[in-house]
Amino acid sequence: MYTKGRSRHFIYTDWILIETQFDPEQLHSKETVFTIGNGYLGTRGCFEEGYPHALPATFIHGVYDDVPVVYTELVNCPDWLPLIVIVNGDRFRLDQGEILRYDRQLDLRQGLLGRSLRWRSPSGNTIDIGFERFASLADPHVLALRCHLTPVDFDGLIEVQASINGYPENQGFNHWEGLDQGKTDQGIWLQRRTRSSRIELCVAAKVTISGTEASLQVSTAPGYPTLSTTFLGKAQQTVTVEKLVTVFTSREVETPVLAAQEKLAHLPDYATLLKANEQAWDEVWQQSDILIEGDSTATFAVRYNLFQLLIAAPRHDDRVSIPAKTLSGFGYRGHIFWDTEIFMLPMFLFTQPAIACNLLSYRWHTLPGAQRKAAHYGYKGAMFAWESAVTGDEVTPRWALESNFYGEDVRIWCRDREIHINADIPYAIWNYWQATGDDDWMQKVGAEVILDAAIFWGSRVEFNPERERYEIRGVIGADEYHELVHNNAFTNRMAQWHLEKAIAVYDWLTDKFPERATELEQKLKLTSQERSHWQDIVAKILFLYDPSTELIEQFEGFFQSEDIDLADYEPRDRSMQAILGVDRINKYQVIKQPDILMLLYLMRESADFPYSEKALQTNWDYYAPRTDITYGSSLGPAVHAILASDLSKSIEAYELFIRALMVDLEDNRGNTSDGIHGASAGGIWQAVIFGFGGIQLTENGPVANPHLPPGWTRLKFKLHWRGKWHDFDLHQGLGIGHGALGMGHGELGMGHGELGMGHGEKDTTEITNAQFPIPNSQSSNIQGFIFDLDGVLTDTAELHYLGWKKLADEEGIPFDREANEALRGVSRRASLMLILGDRPYAEAQIQEMMERKNRYYVELIQNMTPQDLLPGAIALLDELRQAGIKIGIGSASKNAQTVIERLGIADKIDAIADGYSVQEPKPAPDLFLYAAKQLGIEPEQSVVVEDAAAGVEAALAAGMWAVGLGPVERVGAAHVVLPSLEGITWADLREQLSHVSRQKR
Amino acid sequence: MYTKGRSRHFIYTDWILIETQFDPEQLHSKETVFTIGNGYLGTRGCFEEGYPHALPATFIHGVYDDVPVVYTELVNCPDWLPLIVIVNGDRFRLDQGEILRYDRQLDLRQGLLGRSLRWRSPSGNTIDIGFERFASLADPHVLALRCHLTPVDFDGLIEVQASINGYPENQGFNHWEGLDQGKTDQGIWLQRRTRSSRIELCVAAKVTISGTEASLQVSTAPGYPTLSTTFLGKAQQTVTVEKLVTVFTSREVETPVLAAQEKLAHLPDYATLLKANEQAWDEVWQQSDILIEGDSTATFAVRYNLFQLLIAAPRHDDRVSIPAKTLSGFGYRGHIFWDTEIFMLPMFLFTQPAIACNLLSYRWHTLPGAQRKAAHYGYKGAMFAWESAVTGDEVTPRWALESNFYGEDVRIWCRDREIHINADIPYAIWNYWQATGDDDWMQKVGAEVILDAAIFWGSRVEFNPERERYEIRGVIGADEYHELVHNNAFTNRMAQWHLEKAIAVYDWLTDKFPERATELEQKLKLTSQERSHWQDIVAKILFLYDPSTELIEQFEGFFQSEDIDLADYEPRDRSMQAILGVDRINKYQVIKQPDILMLLYLMRESADFPYSEKALQTNWDYYAPRTDITYGSSLGPAVHAILASDLSKSIEAYELFIRALMVDLEDNRGNTSDGIHGASAGGIWQAVIFGFGGIQLTENGPVANPHLPPGWTRLKFKLHWRGKWHDFDLHQGLGIGHGALGMGHGELGMGHGELGMGHGEKDTTEITNAQFPIPNSQSSNIQGFIFDLDGVLTDTAELHYLGWKKLADEEGIPFDREANEALRGVSRRASLMLILGDRPYAEAQIQEMMERKNRYYVELIQNMTPQDLLPGAIALLDELRQAGIKIGIGSASKNAQTVIERLGIADKIDAIADGYSVQEPKPAPDLFLYAAKQLGIEPEQSVVVEDAAAGVEAALAAGMWAVGLGPVERVGAAHVVLPSLEGITWADLREQLSHVSRQKR
Repeated sequence: MYTKGRSRHFIYTDWILIETQFDPEQLHSKETVFTIGNGYLGTRGCFEEGYPHALPATFIHGVYDDVPVVYTELVNCPDWLPLIVIVNGDRFRLDQGEILRYDRQLDLRQGLLGRSLRWRSPSGNTIDIGFERFASLADPHVLALRCHLTPVDFDGLIEVQASINGYPENQGFNHWEGLDQGKTDQGIWLQRRTRSSRIELCVAAKVTISGTEASLQVSTAPGYPTLSTTFLGKAQQTVTVEKLVTVFTSREVETPVLAAQEKLAHLPDYATLLKANEQAWDEVWQQSDILIEGDSTATFAVRYNLFQLLIAAPRHDDRVSIPAKTLSGFGYRGHIFWDTEIFMLPMFLFTQPAIACNLLSYRWHTLPGAQRKAAHYGYKGAMFAWESAVTGDEVTPRWALESNFYGEDVRIWCRDREIHINADIPYAIWNYWQATGDDDWMQKVGAEVILDAAIFWGSRVEFNPERERYEIRGVIGADEYHELVHNNAFTNRMAQWHLEKAIAVYDWLTDKFPERATELEQKLKLTSQERSHWQDIVAKILFLYDPSTELIEQFEGFFQSEDIDLADYEPRDRSMQAILGVDRINKYQVIKQPDILMLLYLMRESADFPYSEKALQTNWDYYAPRTDITYGSSLGPAVHAILASDLSKSIEAYELFIRALMVDLEDNRGNTSDGIHGASAGGIWQAVIFGFGGIQLTENGPVANPHLPPGWTRLKFKLHWRGKWHDFDLHQGLGIGHGALGMGHGELGMGHGELGMGHGEKDTTEITNAQFPIPNSQSSNIQGFIFDLDGVLTDTAELHYLGWKKLADEEGIPFDREANEALRGVSRRASLMLILGDRPYAEAQIQEMMERKNRYYVELIQNMTPQDLLPGAIALLDELRQAGIKIGIGSASKNAQTVIERLGIADKIDAIADGYSVQEPKPAPDLFLYAAKQLGIEPEQSVVVEDAAAGVEAALAAGMWAVGLGPVERVGAAHVVLPSLEGITWADLREQLSHVSRQKR
Repeated sequence: MYTKGRSRHFIYTDWILIETQFDPEQLHSKETVFTIGNGYLGTRGCFEEGYPHALPATFIHGVYDDVPVVYTELVNCPDWLPLIVIVNGDRFRLDQGEILRYDRQLDLRQGLLGRSLRWRSPSGNTIDIGFERFASLADPHVLALRCHLTPVDFDGLIEVQASINGYPENQGFNHWEGLDQGKTDQGIWLQRRTRSSRIELCVAAKVTISGTEASLQVSTAPGYPTLSTTFLGKAQQTVTVEKLVTVFTSREVETPVLAAQEKLAHLPDYATLLKANEQAWDEVWQQSDILIEGDSTATFAVRYNLFQLLIAAPRHDDRVSIPAKTLSGFGYRGHIFWDTEIFMLPMFLFTQPAIACNLLSYRWHTLPGAQRKAAHYGYKGAMFAWESAVTGDEVTPRWALESNFYGEDVRIWCRDREIHINADIPYAIWNYWQATGDDDWMQKVGAEVILDAAIFWGSRVEFNPERERYEIRGVIGADEYHELVHNNAFTNRMAQWHLEKAIAVYDWLTDKFPERATELEQKLKLTSQERSHWQDIVAKILFLYDPSTELIEQFEGFFQSEDIDLADYEPRDRSMQAILGVDRINKYQVIKQPDILMLLYLMRESADFPYSEKALQTNWDYYAPRTDITYGSSLGPAVHAILASDLSKSIEAYELFIRALMVDLEDNRGNTSDGIHGASAGGIWQAVIFGFGGIQLTENGPVANPHLPPGWTRLKFKLHWRGKWHDFDLHQGLGIGHGALGMGHGELGMGHGELGMGHGEKDTTEITNAQFPIPNSQSSNIQGFIFDLDGVLTDTAELHYLGWKKLADEEGIPFDREANEALRGVSRRASLMLILGDRPYAEAQIQEMMERKNRYYVELIQNMTPQDLLPGAIALLDELRQAGIKIGIGSASKNAQTVIERLGIADKIDAIADGYSVQEPKPAPDLFLYAAKQLGIEPEQSVVVEDAAAGVEAALAAGMWAVGLGPVERVGAAHVVLPSLEGITWADLREQLSHVSRQKR
């Protein structure tokens, strides 16, 4: 069950993330979450006006510079965001004055970040401020920012300062030295150069103002060029400031200053740039979108994870790759790990193959560094860096240094020992080749990497004559809790697999491209003896495996090390390594992340040894409970989700999936501030496609064997396979999968995970018990039911739509049912903002419109009839009354009375708690306690039926039984979770509730 | 002989350092050299307008912040200097446009840094710009900067921007987070806070403009508040900009913002502030000045070293101390070493005892940190940090990290092993007590440090029952080339000395302050057993010493390690450690800095064991040749100079002294850019006072036994001893030392080092031979003499004085003989600048005045008579002529002919080479070669008589014999050095020259 509550101010629509309240406590994690980018750069979602301790950052691919301890880091580039508004002398800033209204929105469809605020200055002037920005996907060197300013209750002087900040920081360090700066007819520019790597950069900016008469001044504080203007703002009149920015570095052009000035001079206006950006995003989503229905959080959150990968992926550059934390944070200093090839790459491979090609070509460019590393350690060929940057030399820090005066520094051994990456990269290259059939790239680029990396293994393995086996000693496997092990099964098998493929590639090259084969033989000193050596290793490498049970030993002696029950350490909020210590954990059978299971996953696709269903079951049973899946590596949950799905553990699979899915949106590891978990995002794609979608890659192309999670009614996506697109449109329970276009799939049978009561019951109960208290009573004591109204007994969504539609028509704004989809679960104000879009309205007008829409809605309620009751509602109400159970309503609506009357159920209801009853809204328990009191029953005798997370929380807080309607991720905290009331009987419910109480007694 | 030529653009007057040319190659070292300060802060001598890669820095005592690897560092504070001048759109900057005139001057008398420039902009506008700044010694929170602007050849727009730069860097790192900034009626202010240590700071600034009508604008780029103005500059009209700055931190006041604003609001004008500053400096120099006559370089350079200590010393704060690199650079991150107590402290102790008290009280405040360190290492009491900062915890970095991807990190062991500091601090405290008799401080503060540090030794020594000796194993001694040694004589003896004194202090305390004794016994867990233990250690600590020879072994096994002849490695430009490597050098008998000799020096004053004249001679002979005195530690040369002086090695002592004296002025170790060598500066004071002054501290007060170096005619200084001032005025050869006021000294006998021919001859010849070629001839072949004119045959200084005097009178500028002293050796322009001071003159006027003064000078020459010949000149000329030796003149003067005629020696001169004869001036050989040709003799048959270094160099370059008149440090390169021609005969000279040639054949 994932951690709740960290992001209670988030609303997810299908495409838009809405933050409804600003929480300074979450400043840094939200900066990460609201990152935008365009494959050239990424910009954290910091405020244009700044905030104390904010961590603004713009990272450009390939712009690294030297730094102590970790050698090199991705450089924070000059900040293009600063836009300061001074209202009658008061600088607009969220830590002063009063925030009267706030929402921040990230629209994934077009990579558009917006913020809408009403702010009252310390001097008492109220102003509406709207910001919007994007990094153009249509032109990677273009950034745009727009600001609307509307004084609400005053006329007064407003000053706007739009700057380029040449003092960006990497944890306090400024990598830039000033070269020059200046102004042109177009605006301002700033030229800087990195201190050591000497990459030159120019950022240029111009500003236009509309809605008032104002002239621009240039000020030239060193490193802080600024365009500023002062105008007389008038109440209810909107002034718009557009800041357009261009950026180039010497990695792309010879003279960034000229390029940035030139481009700035020819930029069209904001609206035109926005349109081009939207079109570019349309094309991207055309290929990479995943549509999920029936689970609105997943609908958005899956797209969110894809979005974060898409904005971080190099679209125009094959000498860079995606850092572990993408281009969104300072974590791991922008270094590149196996995360890219093993976790992130598949999404690109199957939906954006050109980007996949860039990512893999990056490794080819780093071969010289990998060769230097091999030579340093006394090996041959290419030994890829565990952490890689520009050159491919090893940049993993040697030390985790103590800041305590007398603490001990901790040696980091991954640089020396975590060598499985040398097979992981070839694994990805091979898969790229299989999926694309890109022979030309393979012979020119891919083959060299596979072969040179294979030569490393030839020099790295040791032959043990006693065992007559090749061994690989002194490594760290995928599981990093064990820092010095021998014959790690993951490493040994991946090396063996790699050498098998290297031989195949060598033979293929010799056959199809003999000249290239000869060339590489000379360049890499590759001989037939080496090929024979590889064959010998493949045949004789040690693999610790019991054929009878198919249980694999993670490394030599693992089974002898001390066993541990992770449950004994619950509840916990940190990793087992943090609890036991770096040294001690080496001695235990507790692992950071899947290692044997990771191997099985990687071998799963082609069912390569040792993958089998039995092996999976056996090793899952052994290793899964020993894996620190909650606070170990974030690389774990998505992979475990796929394997759990394979093992028909639908609920567990979904829970693991949600853990990965929400890792950043809910900051459930507490380190989102360091940047997006790129590998987890990549794992999400794999979990949806390979896990729930059950995609298998056959010679005839991809085939689906879906295992949709509970609640998912539809899963739609596209895969590219050997030059063709394959569409999948999978539906829950219908047993229908649309085959690839132009290819013959049969109908795909429905797999596991259907949400029937019989199946779902036990699992649901189990997770419930693990988390929430059981009311102090037997379920047989139940005396009353309290129903939420909207979403439980009826659904007012249609009425809301009609209300908005009427309003929109009156305002002449296009609005239809499709547009209405974006408003699900969105507050009244936020909904109106979405409808109004860019149109500038004064706050007073907005207030009036909100009231108008509510009037229409109340009018519509008058037209409700018993037909508007949801399926199963009337039957259950009647059954309960017959059983002598009391019935109450617990609804926050102020229209509850009216609705109940119109629905014709007033005579079935014993008490109503509504929007007038209590002060504190859900999730406070007050409303339900009020209802129970009205019904004359005790909380532990009450059952609450709810469809919202806050409602379930309120019921639990009240000490009542909770029945949740909807997906587990929303109402999973309830004692019983149901899709809806349809077909539900009092007998069913009583049975399930008694099961819950028995389990715990 | 010290390295020449690194700073060939320097002129030294008695008090003023003048840099006559800007050399970008020396940017960073000159920034250090021109550091100013006031004991509260130090500001490096960077340019107000900036320069590419400049390292501007202002360090405030006690403002430290966290940093990786080295734990904490002195923080570079917001820069108060920026003042940008834009001339008709061209920003004034020395890397663009044309520098037509340049000089930079540091006036030690009042800590005043000035710069005077004529600059032609890229657009061709010429402007005179003068800067001046000081950090007020009268009020440590006040900084002032003034700029004169005089367009030379244009009328045009001039913009001035005066800023506070909130983005200062420590090697790229900005320790400050922004809190706030703003403007007041008075100007601008910036409030920042250090990231980790959370020290708040406010810098406020205001600007006034005179000489034109101009209004000020405020611009508020975040972190870069700026006051700017634009005015119409007019040719030959001077506009003056004054920027006054206040600065406070939360270390001194609760609300730095209010304090800085408040003080700014009440500041008087620049001139008034300057006057107060001057008075404060007067008082300081009253106590601390050292007057040297007869060696103009030393006159200035000794004061320069004192100045750098005085500006770095905390005057108002006893919780801070002076970092190894003072407040002038980033080296050693502002950490505090034994350098302070052992090298720098004596100057303060004897001339500024209140500051000495602050420095020592700092250690008392850090006792808790020292106790934590002891506990960490398993010892008792206080174990002082090798590198110390605010808390006293150990902040020596553990590692010298490799930036190379595959290099090996080097462990730094000083934090663990260099424990002699634990006796060094008590040594300083004891000496403070002896010199001041400050019993009150001793019982309250000093005693606790001595006792708690003694407790450490009690737990640190190990008793070796076989030897029946206490040992101290596993240490680094004063010599850091040997990283793991046992029973280092320096450490063991200092610990023993410390315990002896600890017992004495303990007994004294018990006797005089029994309550305090009891208090400390309880606090420190001090017992009579502990006292007995100390006595036992004192009696039985191991000391490796041969009583027969008095040779001490540096540590166990030193004599067995491999010996090495340092001469085999000459010439070299780096340390022996750099040559041999950190590991290898451990095995050799080569040491970084005095260790045994350091011990003898520290024991010298009270002639404590093992100090004796024999021990000094024996150990000097052994250890001095094995010491890497040139590129080892900069702590070495001054101490060696003192001991060499004791051993009557006057020339060697003087050379060592000069090496230390010029370490920063001539950057002779190449690392002045990192900051002033504070310990070397402190060593200079000790070398002058204890070495050359021969001061010994007797029960009756300090007594002088001077050994003045060759050339020094006078040495005058003051010492404070037990509440009274003692004046010393020592004269070369006169045998007269003025005793302390009010105390009875007898006349002090003249010691060693008198510059008589008989004595000086051999030494002089020795150093000469070591450095310069002998002409290809016997000295008996000498056929001719070439005399320089000014300073050799006559002296025109008086005529120059009269020229300047006349000019000054005409201009109404006060000028007298005392003021004239500052002009010695100063160019015509620089002299004029000194005379003009602040008075604004246009360049055309300056040109005219220079010409006018020369006219007066030429007129005065006409009045010369044979009376103006220098003593001995006429006699020698006559003798030479009688001996048939030809006589020429080699003078750069264009008035040589006139002068010779007026002196009445025209008939004695066979040829004249003067300012019209050749193109290349001295030190090119051209002029002398021309003269020899005129005389019809070969170079090797010629003797040049010169009083200038450049002249001697020219003679040597010509392959001639050189006779230098004046101090060794000026003309020591000559074959023969004489004070003057007085009493010199041709026979003398021939004898000496033949001695030179014999030595080398």
